[in-house]
Amino acid sequence: MTDRENDPETGSRLQPKYDSNGLIAAVVSDDSSGELLMLAYMNAEALQRTQDSGVAHFYSRSRQRLWKKGETSGNILTVTEMRIDCDQDAVWIKAVPAGPACHTGQNSCFYRKIISGKLELIE
Amino acid sequence: MTDRENDPETGSRLQPKYDSNGLIAAVVSDDSSGELLMLAYMNAEALQRTQDSGVAHFYSRSRQRLWKKGETSGNILTVTEMRIDCDQDAVWIKAVPAGPACHTGQNSCFYRKIISGKLELIE
Repeated sequence: MTDRENDPETGSRLQPKYDSNGLIAAVVSDDSSGELLMLAYMNAEALQRTQDSGVAHFYSRSRQRLWKKGETSGNILTVTEMRIDCDQDAVWIKAVPAGPACHTGQNSCFYRKIISGKLELIE
Repeated sequence: MTDRENDPETGSRLQPKYDSNGLIAAVVSDDSSGELLMLAYMNAEALQRTQDSGVAHFYSRSRQRLWKKGETSGNILTVTEMRIDCDQDAVWIKAVPAGPACHTGQNSCFYRKIISGKLELIE
């Protein structure tokens, strides 16, 4: 490979830049509406399983384990596209959600606006 | 305040859950196209300045300092809406970009797809 191909910003080589905990941020948007659904974190295994299965997997920081989104609720996220950012420390997933993406029952985890320092439910 | 109003998930009180480094993830999407532009991190000061000024501020982990997006390039992000997620550890900003959001000159930092484990430039 040339230096350019190997360069994290210009190259074609996937070389995720994991943080000190071995994690990379992953944002999921709804493939049809474009709305942001959730933000979570992936370790190398979660990223690989997501690519292999086509269904979003994450690493739960609170439970400290691999987590297939929807494993309990059934509300899986079927991946339609994955992107990575310039310095390869964030992933953007477009997905078709099988149900509400948020554990609260909301379609999106981002159900509140910040207005004048307070939170308001979106319409 | 009642317990419900004070609850991070149901309440109207902004109480960001910063990580051990005092940071919260912030995703920016283009207000008109809905495309994801970038993902960065905010400390409490960056979040406050973003709210006060209406222009996105972040905390640069590499430079370890507050960073007004576009301070050098002029490509500021004018905030049209801010949301926070269920557990208040991620912020979603909709913004009008003054120019390319990525330091590489691309409109979005997410200019490459992951396909079969390799990266391909989007069309």
